[in-house]
Amino acid sequence: MKKILSVILFAALCLGASAQEITWHNAEDLTILGKALPTAKTYTRIDTTVYKFDNKTVDHYANFSTGVAVVFETDSHVIKARWTTSSAAYGANMNPILQKGLDLYIMKDGKWIFAGVGRPYTKKTPYNKHEGTIVSNMADGTKQCLLYLPLFDRVDELEIGIDEGASIKAIENPFHHNIIVHGSSVTHGASASRPGMSYAARFGRNTGLYCVNLGFSGQCKLQKEYARYLADLKDVDAFIFDTFSNPKAAEIYERYNEFVDIVRAAHPGVPMIFLQTERRESRNFNTAVEKSETEKQKAAEEMVKARMKTDKDIYFISSEDFLGKDHNATVDGSHPSDLGFTYMLQSITPKIQKILKKYGIK
Amino acid sequence: MKKILSVILFAALCLGASAQEITWHNAEDLTILGKALPTAKTYTRIDTTVYKFDNKTVDHYANFSTGVAVVFETDSHVIKARWTTSSAAYGANMNPILQKGLDLYIMKDGKWIFAGVGRPYTKKTPYNKHEGTIVSNMADGTKQCLLYLPLFDRVDELEIGIDEGASIKAIENPFHHNIIVHGSSVTHGASASRPGMSYAARFGRNTGLYCVNLGFSGQCKLQKEYARYLADLKDVDAFIFDTFSNPKAAEIYERYNEFVDIVRAAHPGVPMIFLQTERRESRNFNTAVEKSETEKQKAAEEMVKARMKTDKDIYFISSEDFLGKDHNATVDGSHPSDLGFTYMLQSITPKIQKILKKYGIK
Repeated sequence: MKKILSVILFAALCLGASAQEITWHNAEDLTILGKALPTAKTYTRIDTTVYKFDNKTVDHYANFSTGVAVVFETDSHVIKARWTTSSAAYGANMNPILQKGLDLYIMKDGKWIFAGVGRPYTKKTPYNKHEGTIVSNMADGTKQCLLYLPLFDRVDELEIGIDEGASIKAIENPFHHNIIVHGSSVTHGASASRPGMSYAARFGRNTGLYCVNLGFSGQCKLQKEYARYLADLKDVDAFIFDTFSNPKAAEIYERYNEFVDIVRAAHPGVPMIFLQTERRESRNFNTAVEKSETEKQKAAEEMVKARMKTDKDIYFISSEDFLGKDHNATVDGSHPSDLGFTYMLQSITPKIQKILKKYGIK
Repeated sequence: MKKILSVILFAALCLGASAQEITWHNAEDLTILGKALPTAKTYTRIDTTVYKFDNKTVDHYANFSTGVAVVFETDSHVIKARWTTSSAAYGANMNPILQKGLDLYIMKDGKWIFAGVGRPYTKKTPYNKHEGTIVSNMADGTKQCLLYLPLFDRVDELEIGIDEGASIKAIENPFHHNIIVHGSSVTHGASASRPGMSYAARFGRNTGLYCVNLGFSGQCKLQKEYARYLADLKDVDAFIFDTFSNPKAAEIYERYNEFVDIVRAAHPGVPMIFLQTERRESRNFNTAVEKSETEKQKAAEEMVKARMKTDKDIYFISSEDFLGKDHNATVDGSHPSDLGFTYMLQSITPKIQKILKKYGIK
């Protein structure tokens, strides 16, 4: 009899454990961060039905969820997610978590602390439907959550799974001010390890400043169409520009002033901080890259410094120490790993903060 | 007439540029590093026809080219590669370059400096045939090259492409001594950014010591079959063990002494350096992981320190600072990024060097 009771008790316990049901909530009802302007599609950073880009790749990247994050509050002990992306194959120089995965931070003692990732599906094509547990077995209590969406794909649908009976609700944007970060793949976030590890996202978490990621991998060449989009934005507190990695030296000379003219006309007195392009590790032995990168860096420094003579709100940050000194800070010679972005943030954070402080931004 | 001559000259120049033919050399004829014992298959780290592992995953991983590298000398201006791996899909927490790619370093001023990567094919399954340019446009002169093979796949064939007429030849192993590094996914190299960025490979390049990577992702649980393999090795100068990340606390208590008994009987007086398992970032909010990891760390410290009382050549390195203090150093809560491995090397390098120095190893 005792044995039978034990078996029943054990079965009930197992049932209880597995019977902790999950309820799924559409993330569209939560707070969506990371966009400079509203978009028709929830998880898209730029609405390409409103802003047309000549270049198909730019248009494609504009629809990515790069820099987009969801914030919410929950008392659940577990956070799961299921989401859909495009079916695109994975690229070589970024891991799948960065490309199509999710990256969760929870507020603890006034800081956003890493909590877990949503691993995307990688086993068989198509790679467009994903589901996973991001964190489980959490202690009781209400948690403020910041969930970054895929850095190199779009998101069509996203649901958050929590304990049955637990609450989940939108919270106010916990970041302040409005910093627009526009640039190359380096800004885009290639090749960080997780969607929340781009330098713009890390700078935002570290400082509390709201940062919008307008990085366009390989496609940031001081085009007028970007300048016109940036001119349309309202209440921008500062621009950070990484605009010298993709164009050739000749394009920098040709386009820089017009790009600044368009942005400046719409945003008088707003600080425009230009980052010099990094010293690529592909220069180590490739003499052609050494030559073209030297020319680009020269063009960038010349053009920004000339403009600074007549515009006191333009700044130039040189890049000698962006990738440290160990020659190990990129994935492929061009794209910083988390190590590279750490070196870069160590270099730029105090310099940018010093500039922003002059404008009362901190 | 002048115009016709110009056209002919231009055509000849174009032809000349594109006619720079590549010749392909089988890498089997070069020097292969990173194996503890010879193997029948060239790029396999352990010969599983000689050493049978009970566990199919261990057997599978033993055939990987993890830690295996090719060294050679060439006066070519370009280095290309074509290689074949398995058709396995890419995993979520490592980029394809790490999993199936190549990673080249060239000796410059007495240091191995990053030169370029061989990007694996990722567009469509099967992902088993790869070809790419690793570095081009190099200056004249002879270069010593160190090319790491895929960290998370096997290599069946590898050819190196150089300028037609250029030379390529095997060179002596540039590393000295014989350090065996055995451990978990952390030793294996998940989730560095490139095959040459595992901590064992970086420690080797930084110190000149020959390091063999016997990391087995998720499968390093103080099994006797590993101990027996390690006992068969000859002329080992030191062991570095990362053996506490995969087993449960109970397995550490149960297996540690027997594991050490087997290795020690074969290698009297050889330093055995045990690294404590890292403080995982998945502990940040998961109370179950917090509990099990605390138990594992306690078991590891107890068992090693007890053994140190009777074996003066056993060492324990605690792991408080393996992942820094920013909670940003892993890809997924468990696996260090290049940032995590940098923190780890900053911690362990001076400690290991101090130990090795006592044995005249430097």
